[in-house]
Amino acid sequence: MTLKEVKIKNLVIASGNRGKVEEFKDYLNGLGFSLLPKPDEIEVEETGATFIENAYLKASQVAIATQEWALADDSGLEVAALNGAPGVFSARYGKNDRERIARILAELGDRTQREAQFVCAIAIASPDGKIAIDAVGICKGEILYAPAGDRGFGYDPIFYVAQYNLTFAQMSPQLKAEISHRGKALEILRPKLKDLAIS
Amino acid sequence: MTLKEVKIKNLVIASGNRGKVEEFKDYLNGLGFSLLPKPDEIEVEETGATFIENAYLKASQVAIATQEWALADDSGLEVAALNGAPGVFSARYGKNDRERIARILAELGDRTQREAQFVCAIAIASPDGKIAIDAVGICKGEILYAPAGDRGFGYDPIFYVAQYNLTFAQMSPQLKAEISHRGKALEILRPKLKDLAIS
Repeated sequence: MTLKEVKIKNLVIASGNRGKVEEFKDYLNGLGFSLLPKPDEIEVEETGATFIENAYLKASQVAIATQEWALADDSGLEVAALNGAPGVFSARYGKNDRERIARILAELGDRTQREAQFVCAIAIASPDGKIAIDAVGICKGEILYAPAGDRGFGYDPIFYVAQYNLTFAQMSPQLKAEISHRGKALEILRPKLKDLAIS
Repeated sequence: MTLKEVKIKNLVIASGNRGKVEEFKDYLNGLGFSLLPKPDEIEVEETGATFIENAYLKASQVAIATQEWALADDSGLEVAALNGAPGVFSARYGKNDRERIARILAELGDRTQREAQFVCAIAIASPDGKIAIDAVGICKGEILYAPAGDRGFGYDPIFYVAQYNLTFAQMSPQLKAEISHRGKALEILRPKLKDLAIS
């Protein structure tokens, strides 16, 4: 059976984060899937060393547990001068966004090498847990010396994109969705996913 | 043990393709690894549905078999109007380059939607088979109506990059290495790999 012959009706979004689930719904609506939330009782540990591996683990385990097709993502920030930290530990780099941002700024200090990138990996697994589709999106930027902007979440206030002269936290949701790591990964995913929908 | 504390001396290039091994050597030389070829008797089947999954499978299995760190890549061409074909079947789309190119051109016919992309996924696994690093590079282009250029290999003669007004088969090796899917993946990989080398 090739992928082309498969048609999916339901797609479980393997995330416990309600905001992220809504973001995926916004993007994937109209493709013809019923998007289902992940049942709360299914917990997946992110034990991978990379974003892709974590997305694979989550998609695969949730697909098997629900016996449905499942989509998972893993994403985070990589700061060049910190050897790629916080990386897969982005969400665990402090108790809350304020602490996580303070930690990055303290670790960078007054270093002038401030290149960073947001990375988003997405994987889709079939009900037997096998990966069917994947995509990776990257958005390059710089870490500011102090936060700016109050939109978005996470590291958005210190992630500056020179081309727009804005941090992620200063961008409209539309612009951020278009140029962000997640937007780029979803753009790669969309044509592959379209072929799978019943509709 | 975090990745930062690990130091690698040997890195097995998990490819049977001598040209590809040399290309990796060119790029990874000077990082301080001893680059070793894959022993011929280790054969890995590419059963994954995606480039990343195939790179994972190869890196992991070769690492376990050799008990060394191993690097594997999987790459190929995705043509939008052919629903992403040939994709992971790029190397198996015909008996030789000429047949593979002829098949793509026949399947596209005179369609004007000719967007395509080359994708390269690279994975590095530790001797226990666990993925430690990965990277994906993409190069966007268009499929010409007829081949042009005699450098490179595979689908290079029909893959046209508008920005340079050249096919991959018309580019200098230097330019191709810089802008190609493999070059981009290696560029992502390089800083992560540098931290791992002994030297």
